[in-house]
Amino acid sequence: MKNYKIAVLAGDGIGPEITREAIKVLKLIEERNDVTFELMPAAFGACAYFEFGDAFPQSTIDICDQADAILKGPIGLSHEQSKTIPIDKQPERGALLPMRRRYNTYANFRPVFLPKALAHFSPLKPEIIGEGIDIIMVRELVGGLYFGSKETGINEQGLRYVKETLEYDEHQISQILHQAFKLAQKRKKVLHNIHKSNVLKSSVLWNEILDEVAKEYPEVEVIHQLVDSAATNLCLKPTQFDVMVMENMFGDILSDQGGGILGSLGLMPSACIGDEKAYYEPSHGSAPDIAGKNIANPYSMIGSVAMMLENSFDMAAEAKNVWDAMQGVFGDGYSTADLSKPGSGVKMISTEEFGDKVVEKL
Amino acid sequence: MKNYKIAVLAGDGIGPEITREAIKVLKLIEERNDVTFELMPAAFGACAYFEFGDAFPQSTIDICDQADAILKGPIGLSHEQSKTIPIDKQPERGALLPMRRRYNTYANFRPVFLPKALAHFSPLKPEIIGEGIDIIMVRELVGGLYFGSKETGINEQGLRYVKETLEYDEHQISQILHQAFKLAQKRKKVLHNIHKSNVLKSSVLWNEILDEVAKEYPEVEVIHQLVDSAATNLCLKPTQFDVMVMENMFGDILSDQGGGILGSLGLMPSACIGDEKAYYEPSHGSAPDIAGKNIANPYSMIGSVAMMLENSFDMAAEAKNVWDAMQGVFGDGYSTADLSKPGSGVKMISTEEFGDKVVEKL
Ligand SMILES: CC(C)[C@H](C(=O)O)[C@@H](O)C(=O)O
Ligand SMILES: CC(C)[C@H](C(=O)O)[C@@H](O)C(=O)O
Repeated sequence: MKNYKIAVLAGDGIGPEITREAIKVLKLIEERNDVTFELMPAAFGACAYFEFGDAFPQSTIDICDQADAILKGPIGLSHEQSKTIPIDKQPERGALLPMRRRYNTYANFRPVFLPKALAHFSPLKPEIIGEGIDIIMVRELVGGLYFGSKETGINEQGLRYVKETLEYDEHQISQILHQAFKLAQKRKKVLHNIHKSNVLKSSVLWNEILDEVAKEYPEVEVIHQLVDSAATNLCLKPTQFDVMVMENMFGDILSDQGGGILGSLGLMPSACIGDEKAYYEPSHGSAPDIAGKNIANPYSMIGSVAMMLENSFDMAAEAKNVWDAMQGVFGDGYSTADLSKPGSGVKMISTEEFGDKVVEKL
Repeated sequence: MKNYKIAVLAGDGIGPEITREAIKVLKLIEERNDVTFELMPAAFGACAYFEFGDAFPQSTIDICDQADAILKGPIGLSHEQSKTIPIDKQPERGALLPMRRRYNTYANFRPVFLPKALAHFSPLKPEIIGEGIDIIMVRELVGGLYFGSKETGINEQGLRYVKETLEYDEHQISQILHQAFKLAQKRKKVLHNIHKSNVLKSSVLWNEILDEVAKEYPEVEVIHQLVDSAATNLCLKPTQFDVMVMENMFGDILSDQGGGILGSLGLMPSACIGDEKAYYEPSHGSAPDIAGKNIANPYSMIGSVAMMLENSFDMAAEAKNVWDAMQGVFGDGYSTADLSKPGSGVKMISTEEFGDKVVEKL
């Protein structure tokens, strides 16, 4: 009997309601496998700041430190609400980035997946979706502009200025590239390298190291694409991509564009993996506008559980069952109000019902 | 009789062929207005590097210095070809960025425009395009990561590293924001401010200055959107945007995504405006794969001429005629092979024929 400890950080906004559904799935997996999941809930995000004055309080750190894996809901507040919290205490700078740094979860995997049968969710025409979109974006998650030093002040001309640095070293670059090449090797053996080497020296170093790392994966074909072209092509011909690798900020933007082409960020789970610890989270925000309405689709959170099963607990078969169950619920014509418009022909169900139906299918 | 000097930099790849069509339009405007255009062709880009060893040779600088406005074609080479040129001599670092810096063209206007009648060009479903897309992205063009200091070397652990800085001061930020607010005031009085203030300190300063500048434009409503959300929303609901303002790198990526939602970067002209000088260029690359085939649509280059007429020569009425003529040619069912597939119901014409038809319409 395996026993895994899972820190459960439900987060802000729609976090708690979609986390609840993800837990139903974990419970079922537990019942029918030789495994127990010890769930350890902890406060994280704006809710933790308001309760403890700290978005990532020590009690939560302790729980995460002990956990075998972390399941994390979305965090954050609206633009106006954020301003009520001192900048460095805000949930992103005060909790999310410290978590990524603490556990050095440098490899962020973001599937952008839409089978042909679900093409109706997408804003793209069916002929663009073709046989379906099936991309995994591999995003470097603990370097670049996000973690470089930052300086603000008044310059010689008496003007306010800001300077922040985009930093990478060869170790950071090669470790994420290895992850991407390994994934590409398991999939279609094609890796799209997304960069901006015509302007950024960081991309020049990135590409230099890529040429070296590539030698270890001779079967993988590398296709270079500038980040701006990639943004064009994700709209025009997303099916050209299989595995894409890129630095942190590019990954932030392109993966959200990925959510755009699927039809919703609600369809974007993700895995954030370090050498020692991994955490799993939806790629989207906390959607304060629809929080508490029982209309948010729990797909991204349940999908994050699937990624956890596969990556942290070596339960690839159960992970696949979870994906299939979710596709099956959609396939039966069900959807939630955040994803689909009333009258669009879907059978509209709530967050909770979606979770229940996934469990039924399983 | 007004006399304007125009430096004409045809550039690389498809540059010369689309520039040729743009010149036809300039000639016609000249014929029927009390104006003469003195066209001063000059070498710029990879072609200039191969001829003169310099992508922005002194002779071209002299011509641009004298010009009242600069019409610039796309530049650049394929990833592999670029490598044959030393990094700092490559057309982007050796010509384009120096030009932007020399003339301090800090305000880049990129229309993302698709009338309902042309919705078929877009990869987006007609219901997403609705009554048409009509956005102007205002991109800061001479600051940020593009022009910050860059450092590469070996660190204490013996690892190669790179550090580049994203720098802005309050003057740089406020001047671009003023441009954006002025434009918003002339249009729908709504300005989408695109930033990443939950991570970047540069966005924090940007937003601080925005709050100050906004006071001078009380009629303009400001809507804040994180750059990643904007990337989602440009796919899901592009019609929510009218004027968008953002820093340099964000503008590079989102404007190319803009080309994606229109159906082609070939539909993206742009104006790059400084206090003393302006230049006009397509937002796309030199498309070496289709160069010389007479299939590239000259829309972006002719549109850049229209922007020049309006901004540099105060000929707004003629500018509008040019836009209308181009839309008219599309409206008559004509298109080029870079934009449309054979058999998609359009009447396929060449680059040259497209230019001729625009002139006819005019
Ligand atoms: C919330 C924010 C700090 C975060 C990021 O920028 O990485 C989010 O957008 C994401 O993509 O995970
Ligand atoms: C060619 C390149 C340097 C340029 C940029 O990044 O600004 C281009 O992509 C653009 O958008 O004008």
